[in-house]
Amino acid sequence: MQFLEDMIRSHGEVRPGGIVKVDSFLNHQIDWKTYREIGQEFYRLFRNDGVNKILTVEASGIGLACVAAQFFEVPVVFAKKSKTSNLDAELFSARVHSFTHGNDYTMVVSKKYLGPEDRVLIIDDFLANGQAVLGLRSILDQAGASLAGVGIAIEKGFQEGGRLLRAEGVKLESLAIIQAIGEDGEIEF
Amino acid sequence: MQFLEDMIRSHGEVRPGGIVKVDSFLNHQIDWKTYREIGQEFYRLFRNDGVNKILTVEASGIGLACVAAQFFEVPVVFAKKSKTSNLDAELFSARVHSFTHGNDYTMVVSKKYLGPEDRVLIIDDFLANGQAVLGLRSILDQAGASLAGVGIAIEKGFQEGGRLLRAEGVKLESLAIIQAIGEDGEIEF
Repeated sequence: MQFLEDMIRSHGEVRPGGIVKVDSFLNHQIDWKTYREIGQEFYRLFRNDGVNKILTVEASGIGLACVAAQFFEVPVVFAKKSKTSNLDAELFSARVHSFTHGNDYTMVVSKKYLGPEDRVLIIDDFLANGQAVLGLRSILDQAGASLAGVGIAIEKGFQEGGRLLRAEGVKLESLAIIQAIGEDGEIEF
Repeated sequence: MQFLEDMIRSHGEVRPGGIVKVDSFLNHQIDWKTYREIGQEFYRLFRNDGVNKILTVEASGIGLACVAAQFFEVPVVFAKKSKTSNLDAELFSARVHSFTHGNDYTMVVSKKYLGPEDRVLIIDDFLANGQAVLGLRSILDQAGASLAGVGIAIEKGFQEGGRLLRAEGVKLESLAIIQAIGEDGEIEF
């Protein structure tokens, strides 16, 4: 998606270790127009996939999911992060390792809001190792819900998440895929 | 706002201790139409107040802020929650007590995204004791930014946050104010 690639090139900051900071428009400060463009593009890509619910995980996925939901006209459910391994009988849960923060957390969703009748689009801002998406998919499996697809704003193509999901036949659409970051900080899509 | 009061009456769950759960449409599962109505109403109430940025705090405020931003056509900044007392020189921060969770946390915002040129609308889903809003206002003060107003979806009128802010002359607009919860679980607006 040209619009998002342009935003990343002009407003992203490359840090050592292959980190691209998009704090200024995507996940700390949020540019409303970028969000609208992303939401519209997810709708274009998944509108024929029978989506009746959008699932994401707090915190940065929530805004994108809510704006996209305005186009799909379906509810959003966001998984909450918990530090403890929650075994509440009313919750679906998945234990996830965060490579970004170097810790583990549990994502939880109330059993009231996902079930076998749901065909779900997972939305998130970043895809790197894919741990968050795999956690959300595990929650869908527990609920007996089906996965319509995965919509990602920025995929790090040089990490394994995308390859892993595509190999399993998941309909994964990443609007910008960063293939490499040059030694001079140049971002290649 | 009739629409929101009706949603609370028909979909809210009253729990012991004056707790009203609106998980099913506001802050776990999210009804896209409710969010749009709320965003539009915030715009109607604050469109003449010179708002050039919306500030909220993760997690449940983010979706509302992002949908409202589509009407205002201004950026959103969301404060991040940190367990530690963060003293990073690049961050504005405020220590906040959460009565809901019975703990303290630090909210932080990068100094890059708030400054004296900003006239800010604070948005959040709930107002009870007002601690989160006071923390956000402290961050605005540190940034030299001005407060245009505070937009809240649901205020608990029987807790002190609203009275406190109004007494200080803050333009506070709460779309539904719960005045009391009867012994039978009846919600009074």
